[in-house]
Formats: sequence, C-alpha cells, structure tokens
Amino acid sequence: MTPGKHRRRSLRRFPHSDLAGLSHILCSNMSTPGQPERGERALIRRLAETLANLASAGVPFGDDMAQMSPGDNGLLGTTDMLMDGVDFDSRKHAWFDIGRKSMAVNLSDCAAMAVRPLSALGAVALNNRLSMDDALELHRGIRACGDEFDCPLVGGDTNSWDAPTAIAITVIACPEPGLRPVRRDGAKPGDLIYLTGPVGGSILGRHLRPVPRIKTALAVSRELSPRAMIDISDGVAVDLGHIIEASSCAAEIDEASLALAIHADAQTLADQDGTPARDHALHDGEDFELVIVLPPDADQAVCQRLGLLPLGRILSGSGLMRVTHEGRRTPIEPRGWEHFR
Amino acid sequence: MTPGKHRRRSLRRFPHSDLAGLSHILCSNMSTPGQPERGERALIRRLAETLANLASAGVPFGDDMAQMSPGDNGLLGTTDMLMDGVDFDSRKHAWFDIGRKSMAVNLSDCAAMAVRPLSALGAVALNNRLSMDDALELHRGIRACGDEFDCPLVGGDTNSWDAPTAIAITVIACPEPGLRPVRRDGAKPGDLIYLTGPVGGSILGRHLRPVPRIKTALAVSRELSPRAMIDISDGVAVDLGHIIEASSCAAEIDEASLALAIHADAQTLADQDGTPARDHALHDGEDFELVIVLPPDADQAVCQRLGLLPLGRILSGSGLMRVTHEGRRTPIEPRGWEHFR
Repeated sequence: MTPGKHRRRSLRRFPHSDLAGLSHILCSNMSTPGQPERGERALIRRLAETLANLASAGVPFGDDMAQMSPGDNGLLGTTDMLMDGVDFDSRKHAWFDIGRKSMAVNLSDCAAMAVRPLSALGAVALNNRLSMDDALELHRGIRACGDEFDCPLVGGDTNSWDAPTAIAITVIACPEPGLRPVRRDGAKPGDLIYLTGPVGGSILGRHLRPVPRIKTALAVSRELSPRAMIDISDGVAVDLGHIIEASSCAAEIDEASLALAIHADAQTLADQDGTPARDHALHDGEDFELVIVLPPDADQAVCQRLGLLPLGRILSGSGLMRVTHEGRRTPIEPRGWEHFR
Repeated sequence: MTPGKHRRRSLRRFPHSDLAGLSHILCSNMSTPGQPERGERALIRRLAETLANLASAGVPFGDDMAQMSPGDNGLLGTTDMLMDGVDFDSRKHAWFDIGRKSMAVNLSDCAAMAVRPLSALGAVALNNRLSMDDALELHRGIRACGDEFDCPLVGGDTNSWDAPTAIAITVIACPEPGLRPVRRDGAKPGDLIYLTGPVGGSILGRHLRPVPRIKTALAVSRELSPRAMIDISDGVAVDLGHIIEASSCAAEIDEASLALAIHADAQTLADQDGTPARDHALHDGEDFELVIVLPPDADQAVCQRLGLLPLGRILSGSGLMRVTHEGRRTPIEPRGWEHFR
C-alpha cells in the first residue's frame, strides 16, 4: 500500500483562561533549542522513519491527506481529533459550532489537496456532563457542515467518560476525474504564491466557522495546474514552510502583497494586543484559507476571477523571507503551537 | 449517499479500581426503568432518527460498518475510539497492546461484515505525561496489528493534552469480489446460530489481544451463504440481541451447546467470583469472536472444517431464550455496559 500522512497540523490551543490563552495561541514559539527530543514534530519524524519502508506511491507521508487505496484514482483519507480545552472551549462555544468545526477542518484538508469529499465517520468521547441536547447539537453541527459540502456523516462511534470531550472525524475523498491530488512537494523556483483569502485574527471568531475552500480548490486544480497547495491551520508562515520544506526550496513574501491580505480581524486584534497586524496575518492559525503555488505563467485573469490574493514567490535555496518593494529581505521565524511537548 | 452505522458497541469499562472494576465490567445491568432518556442507545436512536431521511442503500444504519461510497462494491468504513480508564488502563496495560487492541476492534468490525480491510487512519490525543517511547510503542502496536491483517496505517493526527489518552482508529474495507457485506438483519426463523470460538472471561487477558476473525469470516461468506453476522463486543446475549432485533425475530440458545462454547477463562473467572461460567459466556464483552447465522441447510462438514461452534437457532417472534434439552425455555436478560448514562 502507500505511505501517507501523519498530520503536521498542530491545532491552536484554547486554554481555559482567556487572555493567557490569547497570547499563547497567537504567539507561542515552538523552537526550544537544547530540549530533549520531544514535541509533535519529533514524534512525527520518528513515526515517518518507521513507515519509510512502505512502497511509495501517490501521496507521500506528511501531506494533508493519506492515500487509502492504491492507484492514481485511489481514495484519500484524513482524520482530525478536536479536544475540549485545546481546540475548542465548550464553556464558550456552542456545541453546534464545535461539531461544525470538527467536520470543517477535515474538509479543509480535502480542499488542500483539491479532492472531492465522499463521506465521513465520527468517533466521539463525550464528557459525562453533556446533556442529550448537547450531544444532538454536536451531531447536528457535524452533519450540517458535511451536508453543505456533499459529505454525509455515514456512521461513527459514541462513547462517554469523565474527561473532556474529544471528537475525531474521518473523511474520505476521491480525486476529480483526470486530475491528481495536489501535493505539498511540487513547488519550483519562480512559481507564484497565492492565498484564497485574507488571513489573521481568526481567534476573534472565524476559527470556529471555517469555510473549507473546496470549490475554489477544485477550480484552481482544473484551470491553473497548481504545483502545490496546503490549508492554513498553523499559520501562513508555518504552513507555507511545509510547502517549501517538502519542495526543497525557499520562498519570499512581498510586504506590499501581505498588507493587502491582512484580514480585518487581524487589525482589530492588533489594536487590542499591540502585536502588528502583519504578524497576526503571518502567524495566527486556523484560518483555513489555502496557500496555493502556481507556475510563473499562471493565467492572471483566472486568478482574479477565483479571488486569489498574490502573496510572493518560490525561490531556490531554503527558508522563508519577507521582502520590501526595495528588495530588502528579512527572515521570517516560524512560530506555532506544537502538541506533545 | 447512504445511511450507515452509529456503533451500538459499548466497549467494556475498565475502571481504575481493580475489583470494583471486575464486577462492573462483567455484570453491569443496563436496564434502568423509569430513568429519563439517556445512555448511548437512546442517543443512537435519536441520531438514527435524524439520519433516517438519507436514501437507503447497501448497509443500513446501525450495522458494524457504514457504507462510505455508493454501490454494491462501495467501500465500507468503521471507527472506534478507545479511552484510557474506560477501554484500557495504561497503568496496567502495555502501550503496544493498547495500540494493537485499538486497531483490532476495527478489524473485528470488518470480520463481522466479511469484508477485506484496505487501510487505516489513526487520531490520538496523548496524555502529556506519555514518553516518546510510550507514543512510539502505541504506534508500533497499531501498525503491527494492521500489518498482520494487510491493513496498513497510512496516516493520522497526533495531539496531546492533560486529559487521559484517547485513540480513534478508522478502517476502510471493500467487499470481496462477487460477495456482499454480511449484515445484521438477514436472520430468518429456522436459521442456525454459530460462534467462531469459545467465549467468556476475556477480562483475564484476551480482551487486550483480540484476534479479528477476518479469515474465518471471509471463508464463511464464500462457502456458507451466511444470513447475518456480528462480532462480540458487548457479549453474546447483547450482540445476538442486535441480530434478532435487526432481523425482527427471536432466538434460542441450547444450554448443551452453550456448555461446549464456554472458554476456559470463563470457568477460571467463575471459580474466582462465583458467577456461573455460563453467565460469563453469555454476558462478558470483548471476546471479538463472531456470532454467525446460517441457513438451516448449511453444510455441516464446512462448519466443522471452519471450527464453528453451534449455539442455537433463530425463531419467529421476539426475544432471546435459553433452552434445555428437555425443551424448557428461560428468557435471557440483556446485560452490558452502556456509555453516556
């Protein structure tokens, strides 16, 4: 069979204390030099080593989805677990919204690979204090989001316990006829980088109502021969970082383009916390817009019609930089939340 | 698309206090008359109502697996979440075994429908106190069990938190060429009931090392035209109960046959706790043998070759009974652990 992914996504943390939470969510720094090997990325690296002996085909290990059945037309699958107190806060968020988000993050993975979702399974460990109505609202949210994207919830596993609620949704998807899944590792020097929408400040509310960019992704795949795509779960810098790492190249983000891709929420948040809006746009997670890499000759009219926002370009070398219109380059440090540290 | 399952499986509880645990696991009574609607079954019933408007095709809602893609040759999927302190106890069980079991319970669902597993995804919420080695052992166990049944783990989602570890494995599977998945709802009066092996007392250790009966299930499906099958997660009585409920009929278990299907562990446990070994065989969960319903003219030589143990027969009417060889019938009360009460 095929190797696949162990998600590098490290979903944003929503600790129970609100303001402490905000700074942690938005600006935690994942690099801790000299620490013994620990953390999600180290674990994933170790897991990848043990899986490396599987025959390689289709989608490589570490991409947004895993290949579930062989062949270019094989099905892909993705799974995400959302946990109360980490990925959502049931004291503040409605169970319908929590359910919706649990499905949406998986559909966003389908968008990231430009494949069409088919159906979903859900496994839940419900905290014992949930009421029947809470459980039904959660289920209704999962189902509503799935139905909106033609991805019905077809089954699952219902459990309860004394610990916080955990929700694991799995989605399977199929490539569009004649089109291959868009991977992370196809970017080439000279390619152009786009976003499907403005980013930053999702914590003000958008993180709970992500809109999987499936429609745009399928259109991009049909019309623009994309080289690489990823959805923004950990922030533009980290997720674009995954593309350039997988593609063995570098990238630069135009400061002027970035300024036009800052979401109004990022500015609102900047006014509240003093962190530049640009930093929120680069580093805040859970936007679920897509980073799209297109060949240099991509049809600009199509890009405009699909609402793509230019962001920068792929370079040879390694690393991620900001560049001013005078050509002055500054490295961008990756920041993000990492599980299991 | 198709309706599917919300697992009725309610995995055994392993509370942290050992002996209190034993009695709870083995003999908890799920019927609590007069209580406000609560519990996993009530929730599942409510969920089933909301899904009833989906077009019916293939595998009905509530079976061991859900239909993930349309058509008789469509893929099936199943997911199970195992939780520390509920389905396993990480203070006593090795992480390798826990991983193995997490995969095996899903493969047992494939056996229950006589379909061939293709690949698996795993989502984990690891308790922060786990070491890197613990996490790798868990992963190794998941993978070892999958590989043993040609069901590679192709990807997943790794998270951590302060709460106990939860593990959700999803397996997709395909019907064998020319054979349809074996459902729960095809039993008819006059049919014969078999087990794939002796049952009871799994808590003495077998619950942690279940052997998914995929090979036997595929042979039964090829050679014996089974009417209905289910795997034993909640106990023979409860799981056979699911078959007769789905098939709108009754069943009787021959006391003499049952006596020959009691596992040695059930007798050992009976000697320890005073509960009759027969009751352990009827009510203990997590055996992961299969209950198989065959037409009255099933080839007895094939049954013997496949090691099937006769248990009883399907009747018209409703309810589950024991019957002595003199023909005296006694109702069997369903008992089992139910989540979300």
